[in-house]
Amino acid sequence: MTNRGGGFSRSGGRSPSDLRPVTIELDAMKFAEGSALIGCGDTRVLCSASIERRVPPFLVGKGQGWLTAEYAMLPRATLTRSRREVSRGRPSGRTAEIQRLIGRSLRSAVNLKKLPEVTIAVDCDVIQADGGTRTASITGAYVALACALAGWADRKTVPERLLKDSVAAVSVGVVDGEAVLDLNAAEDNGAEVDMNFVMTGSGRFVEVQGTAEKQPFSAEQLSRLIGLAQTGIERILEIQQRVLREWRAPS
Amino acid sequence: MTNRGGGFSRSGGRSPSDLRPVTIELDAMKFAEGSALIGCGDTRVLCSASIERRVPPFLVGKGQGWLTAEYAMLPRATLTRSRREVSRGRPSGRTAEIQRLIGRSLRSAVNLKKLPEVTIAVDCDVIQADGGTRTASITGAYVALACALAGWADRKTVPERLLKDSVAAVSVGVVDGEAVLDLNAAEDNGAEVDMNFVMTGSGRFVEVQGTAEKQPFSAEQLSRLIGLAQTGIERILEIQQRVLREWRAPS
Amino acid sequence: MTNRGGGFSRSGGRSPSDLRPVTIELDAMKFAEGSALIGCGDTRVLCSASIERRVPPFLVGKGQGWLTAEYAMLPRATLTRSRREVSRGRPSGRTAEIQRLIGRSLRSAVNLKKLPEVTIAVDCDVIQADGGTRTASITGAYVALACALAGWADRKTVPERLLKDSVAAVSVGVVDGEAVLDLNAAEDNGAEVDMNFVMTGSGRFVEVQGTAEKQPFSAEQLSRLIGLAQTGIERILEIQQRVLREWRAPS
Amino acid sequence: MTNRGGGFSRSGGRSPSDLRPVTIELDAMKFAEGSALIGCGDTRVLCSASIERRVPPFLVGKGQGWLTAEYAMLPRATLTRSRREVSRGRPSGRTAEIQRLIGRSLRSAVNLKKLPEVTIAVDCDVIQADGGTRTASITGAYVALACALAGWADRKTVPERLLKDSVAAVSVGVVDGEAVLDLNAAEDNGAEVDMNFVMTGSGRFVEVQGTAEKQPFSAEQLSRLIGLAQTGIERILEIQQRVLREWRAPS
Amino acid sequence: MTNRGGGFSRSGGRSPSDLRPVTIELDAMKFAEGSALIGCGDTRVLCSASIERRVPPFLVGKGQGWLTAEYAMLPRATLTRSRREVSRGRPSGRTAEIQRLIGRSLRSAVNLKKLPEVTIAVDCDVIQADGGTRTASITGAYVALACALAGWADRKTVPERLLKDSVAAVSVGVVDGEAVLDLNAAEDNGAEVDMNFVMTGSGRFVEVQGTAEKQPFSAEQLSRLIGLAQTGIERILEIQQRVLREWRAPS
Amino acid sequence: MTNRGGGFSRSGGRSPSDLRPVTIELDAMKFAEGSALIGCGDTRVLCSASIERRVPPFLVGKGQGWLTAEYAMLPRATLTRSRREVSRGRPSGRTAEIQRLIGRSLRSAVNLKKLPEVTIAVDCDVIQADGGTRTASITGAYVALACALAGWADRKTVPERLLKDSVAAVSVGVVDGEAVLDLNAAEDNGAEVDMNFVMTGSGRFVEVQGTAEKQPFSAEQLSRLIGLAQTGIERILEIQQRVLREWRAPS
Repeated sequence: MTNRGGGFSRSGGRSPSDLRPVTIELDAMKFAEGSALIGCGDTRVLCSASIERRVPPFLVGKGQGWLTAEYAMLPRATLTRSRREVSRGRPSGRTAEIQRLIGRSLRSAVNLKKLPEVTIAVDCDVIQADGGTRTASITGAYVALACALAGWADRKTVPERLLKDSVAAVSVGVVDGEAVLDLNAAEDNGAEVDMNFVMTGSGRFVEVQGTAEKQPFSAEQLSRLIGLAQTGIERILEIQQRVLREWRAPS
Repeated sequence: MTNRGGGFSRSGGRSPSDLRPVTIELDAMKFAEGSALIGCGDTRVLCSASIERRVPPFLVGKGQGWLTAEYAMLPRATLTRSRREVSRGRPSGRTAEIQRLIGRSLRSAVNLKKLPEVTIAVDCDVIQADGGTRTASITGAYVALACALAGWADRKTVPERLLKDSVAAVSVGVVDGEAVLDLNAAEDNGAEVDMNFVMTGSGRFVEVQGTAEKQPFSAEQLSRLIGLAQTGIERILEIQQRVLREWRAPS
Repeated sequence: MTNRGGGFSRSGGRSPSDLRPVTIELDAMKFAEGSALIGCGDTRVLCSASIERRVPPFLVGKGQGWLTAEYAMLPRATLTRSRREVSRGRPSGRTAEIQRLIGRSLRSAVNLKKLPEVTIAVDCDVIQADGGTRTASITGAYVALACALAGWADRKTVPERLLKDSVAAVSVGVVDGEAVLDLNAAEDNGAEVDMNFVMTGSGRFVEVQGTAEKQPFSAEQLSRLIGLAQTGIERILEIQQRVLREWRAPS
Repeated sequence: MTNRGGGFSRSGGRSPSDLRPVTIELDAMKFAEGSALIGCGDTRVLCSASIERRVPPFLVGKGQGWLTAEYAMLPRATLTRSRREVSRGRPSGRTAEIQRLIGRSLRSAVNLKKLPEVTIAVDCDVIQADGGTRTASITGAYVALACALAGWADRKTVPERLLKDSVAAVSVGVVDGEAVLDLNAAEDNGAEVDMNFVMTGSGRFVEVQGTAEKQPFSAEQLSRLIGLAQTGIERILEIQQRVLREWRAPS
Repeated sequence: MTNRGGGFSRSGGRSPSDLRPVTIELDAMKFAEGSALIGCGDTRVLCSASIERRVPPFLVGKGQGWLTAEYAMLPRATLTRSRREVSRGRPSGRTAEIQRLIGRSLRSAVNLKKLPEVTIAVDCDVIQADGGTRTASITGAYVALACALAGWADRKTVPERLLKDSVAAVSVGVVDGEAVLDLNAAEDNGAEVDMNFVMTGSGRFVEVQGTAEKQPFSAEQLSRLIGLAQTGIERILEIQQRVLREWRAPS
Repeated sequence: MTNRGGGFSRSGGRSPSDLRPVTIELDAMKFAEGSALIGCGDTRVLCSASIERRVPPFLVGKGQGWLTAEYAMLPRATLTRSRREVSRGRPSGRTAEIQRLIGRSLRSAVNLKKLPEVTIAVDCDVIQADGGTRTASITGAYVALACALAGWADRKTVPERLLKDSVAAVSVGVVDGEAVLDLNAAEDNGAEVDMNFVMTGSGRFVEVQGTAEKQPFSAEQLSRLIGLAQTGIERILEIQQRVLREWRAPS
């Protein structure tokens, strides 16, 4: 990425507030209750939602459900191969952090108290990684989750009492001093500030995470990044709804 | 599967010596030196070959290369979700066994002494599992390997001195007393005998693994299974060659 | 905590924008290059900064230094005893997340390129936990770090070229619908929204982490929480500076 | 081993189809329900069968028994000392593979459905390793198992309904182009092909495992190796029966 | 430490049979049922006793209680920073040994059969380490335990039926050929013999552990060390009693 | 064991100061530099000493040698089967403690400074456990070590400069109020006090470890146990010397 003259240029001719193309293919995994293959530019994540007849120990007998999330990358999802986490015996700190983020984000969309004693196990496996894998995971997993609940409850109708709201996520950052939306890996590596936002369909925040990778940021920059994330997520929420409508249509 | 009257019926109307449809999509992963998405019926494995500038300690300074293989299943590749191996801290015995099998099989095709000091890291990640995942992994990984070596050596020509032979694999078994080729998961679960064969393009055996799951088998049955595997692998080897020819054609 | 009439009451008669009393005792550990025992209300964290003559592999020979952070709680720091992490074989996801946060926060204050090839190992051990342990850790660790660098460089003068800025942290949240500063454990458990902020002495953001524990929050609430954090951190930064001035005075 | 002129020479003057001397000492461990110290040439394995009043979770309440097997080598069983597996935290891939092989082989001999809810825990500990430790383990463990079941059921009579068949194993291989039976460690290291066979007393196959260590093998070679294994195992089965007859005699 | 002329000199002007100053601060941890911060010279250990409503599996339903102990050092308790044990995945051999010693010692003081089905979890965390951390842990943990039982049973009166006896510990050793009491770290590093004794208030031995670090010791030396330990422990037992009396007084 | 009238009876008619029969078979493992199978009553331990051309990191380049020890039990060495330690991922606290004891004891006999840069790896594997396995391990390992050093240095002559002294060990205890020598498992389970002593050929103490398993012991009892251990170890030292003399004789 280069910053020539007064302008700013991103690969693919994107403007600072452009998303990369978002594609969502539903029912990407034959056996899962719900699944989706999401693409955000070259980032691709296979998301599934499995409904399991068990709850964690702290919920046994409480008459409600639970949702957990796991995240992993194939070793060669990245530019250079990374070591498989099982070979070092445990998820890295980064993986642990992302799994917790995905889980919290999706739980905010589900009415756990209205579920029976089941656990929805969400799996997000990154097939190809070009930046924004955690936010793509949340966006894709929400759709897989909606399919799983629809199919499981009474075929194709997402029961409102189970799914309180929709949820989507996006990354924003400061690159070469400019606030930009939806960073790819090259932009992410050079970013001064890196933020991830998760928001609901009703326009409220679920998660806000910002890190000054290279230098601290001002209150004004923070405010601009918040605005950028809001408009980006609005567009992603629309794509989710369109895809789910089309999926329901044929039946 | 049922066995009515004198006949024998397999799902999809297969005869005992029929393979399931084999599909191979090359360059399925953008960043890998070589990659392939192989489908054998509903089984789907994403295979990649990464060339890394290092060798294991026992080969440092020996002036040759090495090849390792890793195998994993996505948690929801299967009918019911299985636990991620990283969460139990180490590969299962089954995974260890399969990884060793894939590694040995592919090493038999490569002329390691003619490689420079690099390690070819083969990754086989099962996206969907409907039986025969280890043999599909070997068949798909061979093609990913051939692409990686071709691209790496001098673009699109697989150098003979690096790749001694081709390699493919298939499963056979005894189901309801009958020897059958290429078992799917339902057949595999009910099989009395389960065998995996790995063979070279020159018609020789690399690996033979047979297990009496339900009851021991006779020398005559063993001989019939060997024959079935030979004809199955011949057809798979042809598919591999055709796919590689087409991949090379455009350049 | 209760919410009677139009008002809002916090334990100790705190108003929503009041910090709990902050105490910092320097040189709390005899052997460490720098150390501090920080108290924020009933939360107490023992922080040390150790200077070690080594750098991680990725920095060997690069002529610069590094900083790492580790965080742990004594088993009985909490209301009920929690299991020692060594007995489950690895840090929990929560611990991994906090360690990464502390490390990133402190690295933003240090001029790593101006350090020789040393690693500053920061340890934050929670002796007593009553909410806000991660933010107290950052605030206390910064002071321990400043002492270590002062003592190590040329006795009692914090060299500016090594320490670019100061750093402090605080938690804010939404409790019973009201935005409050510096939550204790009881408030934290009931909070609808929980945020942690890390800022520099020059008034810029290093880390922003917000989570809707119970229900998503609006842009307006987010803005109010940011303001509350800014004023809280300003006061904490002053306490840090005063403590460091007094420590330097006698020599 | 050398290959002079038209002939072929093995250590101890063995012909290609000769077994090494097999010795079996029963009741080698005072406390085990059944035990045997088996020697195959310089290979020595201590095998025990323990009957435990528990079944694995998947069999609880199913009214049947189970059998598991574990395998290990003393660190100095080998020419040079090998590291104890406990110190690397888990069984190696090789150990996992061998344990699974021994377990499957012995389960094929036992009528698990006729056992009460017990687990027979088979332990094979290699005291001295000179090739063929996995096949010696299977052969020895079968005898330990027969003793345990005899002693446990009604003193010295092996109840036919519990033990369906006997089981023994042997290794074969291609060395210097020649098919040979029962390889020692020196032969094994130089072998082009290495196979392990497990067969029942009724002459049927339980396990067939062949690996082209140096070069792939032809269908004709495979057929010769199968024949060699059959005659070898027949002789070993006789030794097992003789030893068990003598053990029963005194009572 | 130096040994000049006929005399012997220890840091702080101690004679060979002098203890370092012992300080015990009760209720050092707000949430624990019982706690104490013990100082022996520069060694400082935070001890807590937590009463948990569970017993280990082997005692379930037996109508009695249990006591376990855990021991750890903060990374920078020592002169140079030591690695956190959680990062190597398990307690070191040294830690395991010390935990077992503390547990056995304290169990000898408690009437486990008279406890209800609870586990007293004792935690000893070394804040600063200057020799004798395991013996200080035992001495301090006993007092924490007495407070926990007093507070738990019926406020401030230690019930005799629960606490059979008191327990304290001390280290002795041979330094420069001379038997000395209560070694600090510098003395310990140079000691020829290192012993730890645990005794009861009634003057009997609970644990005796002696190791010839540099050279074996005679029966006569052993006898002198035993005597030195007896007098040292007597004095420590008195301090424990005084501290407990004062703690009880105000109520 | 029973205690009738004024007398005291031990299994096998032993008096309180009788050892169980001690047998030592040298060269019990074909490949080890030195090895011994020691039997003390029904306790049997296979000990080997391996000489490895490496030293631990802290001794590299120091021009001296080192000695380490490992200890394990076969799962069915005991009355009921115990779980293999590799399956729980690490040595138990008990194992860690015993390994450290054996290592320290043997290091006291070897002149490590006179060794070249080698590590002597001692392995003690308990084949059968009937009490006193750690002391039998030390006694047996010393003989294996002497053989290894003799064979390695200049054939059959134990070089005095390498082996400073001999070392042997025994257990004593208080059973039914009486001090007894060399407890078997049944006695050990019922013992009030359990002690292990390690002594040199020159009559000095290397290790003293005593634990009040059931009730604390008096200074007088301690003195009686010390005497009993001294006479027991003297007899064991003689057996070691006789066995080594006979081993050397033929050559």
